[in-house]
Amino acid sequence: MSNIIVAQSGGPTSAINASLIGVVRAARESETYDKIYGALHGISGVINEDFLDMTDLSDDVIIRTPASYLGSCRVKMPMVSPEDETYKKVFEIFGKYDVGAFFYIGGNDSMDTVDKLSKYAKLIGSNIRFAGVPKTIDNDLVNIDHTPGYGSAAKFIASTMLEIGYDTAVYEAQCVTIVEIMGRNAGWLTAAAALARNEYNPTPQLVYLPEVNHSVDEFIDDVKRVLEKTNNVVVAVSEGMKDKDGNYLTASDAKEDKFGHAQLSGVGKYLESVVIDRLGIKCRSVELNILQRCAGHMASETDLSEAENLGWYAVEKTIEGNTGFMASIKRVDKVDGIMDLDASVKDEYSVSFYMVELDSIANQERCVPRNWINEAGNDVTDEMLDYIRPLIQGEMEISYKNGLPIYTPIPHLTSNYTCNKANQIL
Amino acid sequence: MSNIIVAQSGGPTSAINASLIGVVRAARESETYDKIYGALHGISGVINEDFLDMTDLSDDVIIRTPASYLGSCRVKMPMVSPEDETYKKVFEIFGKYDVGAFFYIGGNDSMDTVDKLSKYAKLIGSNIRFAGVPKTIDNDLVNIDHTPGYGSAAKFIASTMLEIGYDTAVYEAQCVTIVEIMGRNAGWLTAAAALARNEYNPTPQLVYLPEVNHSVDEFIDDVKRVLEKTNNVVVAVSEGMKDKDGNYLTASDAKEDKFGHAQLSGVGKYLESVVIDRLGIKCRSVELNILQRCAGHMASETDLSEAENLGWYAVEKTIEGNTGFMASIKRVDKVDGIMDLDASVKDEYSVSFYMVELDSIANQERCVPRNWINEAGNDVTDEMLDYIRPLIQGEMEISYKNGLPIYTPIPHLTSNYTCNKANQIL
Repeated sequence: MSNIIVAQSGGPTSAINASLIGVVRAARESETYDKIYGALHGISGVINEDFLDMTDLSDDVIIRTPASYLGSCRVKMPMVSPEDETYKKVFEIFGKYDVGAFFYIGGNDSMDTVDKLSKYAKLIGSNIRFAGVPKTIDNDLVNIDHTPGYGSAAKFIASTMLEIGYDTAVYEAQCVTIVEIMGRNAGWLTAAAALARNEYNPTPQLVYLPEVNHSVDEFIDDVKRVLEKTNNVVVAVSEGMKDKDGNYLTASDAKEDKFGHAQLSGVGKYLESVVIDRLGIKCRSVELNILQRCAGHMASETDLSEAENLGWYAVEKTIEGNTGFMASIKRVDKVDGIMDLDASVKDEYSVSFYMVELDSIANQERCVPRNWINEAGNDVTDEMLDYIRPLIQGEMEISYKNGLPIYTPIPHLTSNYTCNKANQIL
Repeated sequence: MSNIIVAQSGGPTSAINASLIGVVRAARESETYDKIYGALHGISGVINEDFLDMTDLSDDVIIRTPASYLGSCRVKMPMVSPEDETYKKVFEIFGKYDVGAFFYIGGNDSMDTVDKLSKYAKLIGSNIRFAGVPKTIDNDLVNIDHTPGYGSAAKFIASTMLEIGYDTAVYEAQCVTIVEIMGRNAGWLTAAAALARNEYNPTPQLVYLPEVNHSVDEFIDDVKRVLEKTNNVVVAVSEGMKDKDGNYLTASDAKEDKFGHAQLSGVGKYLESVVIDRLGIKCRSVELNILQRCAGHMASETDLSEAENLGWYAVEKTIEGNTGFMASIKRVDKVDGIMDLDASVKDEYSVSFYMVELDSIANQERCVPRNWINEAGNDVTDEMLDYIRPLIQGEMEISYKNGLPIYTPIPHLTSNYTCNKANQIL
């Protein structure tokens, strides 16, 4: 038997801890792995021997605790070379802790790290196994149907858009509400806003993704057209919406303020000022910001369940002898061909897992296909919505204490956290 | 028997529909009132005879549906005069519909409307009864312990701050996160952010209310001091935070952008640019915006329950012959004097209702007492937190469909809404 190290990296999501628990539980149930070490702050925690012994972890709340239980980092590993000191150090530590497998839960950069570590292992003839478990709310990884974390963010966005639809509908006066959603280059998150529409709620009437460029004139024309039918216009816009020349629609390149500070307004604030200026009606912009990725109380049960199972799958595949792969998700087509995406949406959807080559993932970005965006580029198609809808299904049961959701304390924030150096856990 | 009209006004909250249901249920159970008319868009709906017959309403979901079921308006009634055409018209309609009582659920301006209507009634010798049922997330009405709507907004703010605490804690690098919360002149909502602190989460470390002025230098000094202890600083700031001269700390008076549009950045974006400029570290600002008042999925059960009971109470008091009052909330002191505000916080807290004079409410604003803010003016005291904590207790059971919370459709948005003119309901 050997031990494993698991770590997390990249931006927080509501699902990244579910994958962590999947890895921990699978390793514990296996007859291959013994101790389970969580490295704090990603690969940095390996280099610093900053480990948490998770072998006997029995906390179920971690699954639905947002952000990274083990902390994160934004470390880019150097080019693989047999003489590189970083790799030497990392593998020395792997040896010291009798590590048989390393699991890295993260996004694009994290998959790059796993790829490099597995290539270095091959180079030096190490038989340590390396697996990547993907997560990113952006849903922009290639070779995967959708990424863990996306479904929960999409659920928060769609639910919040529905509530914004209620909020903005109460007055009779003309009003435009612009909701800015994350996504610099890919519009997956913004597309989820359209799920808020139902038989009585027509908002958001306009949805702009970064995949299609728009002039400000076109945007204003679109808004005017909607205003002919209703006084309440809600617009969902990706932070990465671009003008006809491919430049971000933002006021960030505007003049500095009286103190010389650069104005940091994004596209939402920018379009707000344009609507007020050009149409002379009330306009408000709302930026969902980091709430999209940390609203654990609104996590998708489908998302968290898949995230956990993907962690399990990664561990099982290393036990079978595989290394240098990312655990990926495939959507299983129905036998009868047609999916009924209405009330029984969840029953009709299922996924299977498979392994993909790590170097097929790194440094690539998956955007929304042009045919999932309408011709005018100001809305998404039903095909797009049918793709997202199953991912937001189901709710986690949340317990509350003193009026607030109960989450698991982050280890490095707790005063009784004493395992912050390896010599304390061995 | 006579009929009643109920209407809603002012900004949306998560609790305003609970008061509506309270009024409807109490009127229905009474032997005094017969038909229950909901006027759409506040007092405008009375003037336009835009009524919805709510007598047989049996939808429980409205209670936890955010924003105003009946729509809202921002109409200011003219000075009371026996010759005024608006009052003549309104009372003519009251007569036409055999109205015995009018209930207005709203904030400061709505109480002013009720006050004026009841004074006009007295002037012309009408015995129609008028009652105000207060709501405002701002909690800035006088002569009430706290306003319905505040508790739910406070619960959303505190929960979101806790999740932001998780999100911001994952990295090791220095980072400042500024969260801008509603409140131009009163800091009640921003104070709720401090409820996110617990035995492991120290954020937000700084809390700025509009009640105490601050120079930018003082703010930067505060942030520096916190950075000496931790790399993760979270700041809660009221949108109405002011500088030493009492001017709003905002970049809105900065120069215009390249298209001549005024920059609309609030205090959060402004302080973000100041931190980046002066401290050279990563800083992000998050504006909770209208999510604070429409997040029905995170409503406080205590808040909604009180809001409904307050509606009941108003109806009962009119049946007893009262008019021209606002239904108000008093916090009942415990017999043993000491409240245990820990796990059993909800059991230790109770309220009673009473009537207050309407003209004691209108055109006044209640701010946070100076002694509930610490001496440095950058945090709130335990007394402040003990005041808010009971108001955020308890959760509503939310049903979901297709991954989204189920709310009651807003009548004027539904295509099958046919009762939009009085002649259709009579």
